[in-house]
Amino acid sequence: MGQIIKGKPVADAISETLTKEVNDLKVKGITPKLTLVRVGANGSDLAYEKGALKKCEKIGIEAVVKELPADISQDKFIEELKKINADKTVNAIMVFRPFPKQLDESVIKYIIAPEKDVDCFSPVNVAKLMEKDMTGFAPCTPSAVIEILKHYKVPMKGKNAVIVGRSMVVGKPACMLLLNENATVTVCHSKTTDMPKVCSQADILVVGIGKAKMIDSKYVKDGAVVIDVGINVDESGKLCGDVDTEDCEAKASMITPVPKGVGSVTSSILAQHIVKACKLQNNL
Amino acid sequence: MGQIIKGKPVADAISETLTKEVNDLKVKGITPKLTLVRVGANGSDLAYEKGALKKCEKIGIEAVVKELPADISQDKFIEELKKINADKTVNAIMVFRPFPKQLDESVIKYIIAPEKDVDCFSPVNVAKLMEKDMTGFAPCTPSAVIEILKHYKVPMKGKNAVIVGRSMVVGKPACMLLLNENATVTVCHSKTTDMPKVCSQADILVVGIGKAKMIDSKYVKDGAVVIDVGINVDESGKLCGDVDTEDCEAKASMITPVPKGVGSVTSSILAQHIVKACKLQNNL
Repeated sequence: MGQIIKGKPVADAISETLTKEVNDLKVKGITPKLTLVRVGANGSDLAYEKGALKKCEKIGIEAVVKELPADISQDKFIEELKKINADKTVNAIMVFRPFPKQLDESVIKYIIAPEKDVDCFSPVNVAKLMEKDMTGFAPCTPSAVIEILKHYKVPMKGKNAVIVGRSMVVGKPACMLLLNENATVTVCHSKTTDMPKVCSQADILVVGIGKAKMIDSKYVKDGAVVIDVGINVDESGKLCGDVDTEDCEAKASMITPVPKGVGSVTSSILAQHIVKACKLQNNL
Repeated sequence: MGQIIKGKPVADAISETLTKEVNDLKVKGITPKLTLVRVGANGSDLAYEKGALKKCEKIGIEAVVKELPADISQDKFIEELKKINADKTVNAIMVFRPFPKQLDESVIKYIIAPEKDVDCFSPVNVAKLMEKDMTGFAPCTPSAVIEILKHYKVPMKGKNAVIVGRSMVVGKPACMLLLNENATVTVCHSKTTDMPKVCSQADILVVGIGKAKMIDSKYVKDGAVVIDVGINVDESGKLCGDVDTEDCEAKASMITPVPKGVGSVTSSILAQHIVKACKLQNNL
């Protein structure tokens, strides 16, 4: 029977380290500051925001919300974003996406200041991720995957890591991050032939394809570590991942649950990136 | 016995298409123009330059060389590059790298105009490659790999593609390009455990690791297509690839030679990117 590895111990360990770092910064007269930029007020943004604000408060990071009207024009949005870019008291910016349709993400992503862009919205940070430039910021979710693997002392070097999904928020960045950890990395997707065969060669299986409970035990090698990045609602209305956890639990050596898995770690990664941005901006 | 698939027929087919496209542009009063920026005069730059100039001339692209002194300062180099960026008659820029040590590539790459950057030097083009934004320019060498596979009608969708090497010039961009073609992609490297086993599951094996004749027949599945991106000099002073072609030829269904393989296609890809840049800049 595999071990259910929860996100909370990982998040707590990160928070503890960060709290010390923020205290050290405050002794120097520096308080890291995040601005969350939200357009309108949809439920999932508000839920994420609540978690992020709570996490920041706990660690000692100042966090403010810039709420903009749902019908804001592109020009006005860009003007507001540029103000926050220029505000020297703000170290980190997180912009909620997707945007309402009058805002063009493909233009706005070039506006956000890369050194404040803590969730890899800017193409500069996308490129730094691919180039293994450690001054950049990877997206929070795949970064959380790596932190979970490290926390539970899962060896990555030379291991076969298989990623299910090739999105820009999970699959492709996870590929780059796992290569940085010296894993041999395979990326599967909807066009993959015989996905169970490919996945069942994985020592580490990372799943982020957005299909409720798609991955069952025939995708899992005995002793594999399974990280479930999916968040879906099942037929009974309960939250579930992309992995059928119950079915896979017997074969896996470790498996993350949904909820209480990867999702519990992302706000701690956000906080980690805010502190990193603050330190870089202060040449620390 | 596998078929030796040479680069020249691929290059010729690309050149033929481009010659027609350039003629059509000329009818509209537009001549695509490349500026090659070379610092100093090292042998490999001069060899590449000669091939690129010849290819451009054949297709009808105007190409000029901006030769800068080997001891040019960073500020002066940036000033020259900005002039070429601003020159409306120039559609495409290729900057020879690596630079002499007084020039900082990590700064200069942010200066080159992304819309003229035909060999993926700018982080904007690196990000576009990862995001599958087709207005960008992938590096010429991995793009040549894809063109060879397409020319010889090698199916990629759903196939297992294994890449040996994770560099920014071959491995990582090839991973993104093969994902775009719907292959299942695995990236191996120096830390991979049991590389022959991983490679011998490949329908398509792309090798760019920089070790002369490292890949022999035990890495190759019966019927695999092998693309050798390496350029090395063997013990007898002859050019050779990363693949031991003679040893692999029997098992592979198709295999590129070195020389006369991938390297013969890159200057045609460069020309393709110049014409694309010119068209995009003219809204065509």
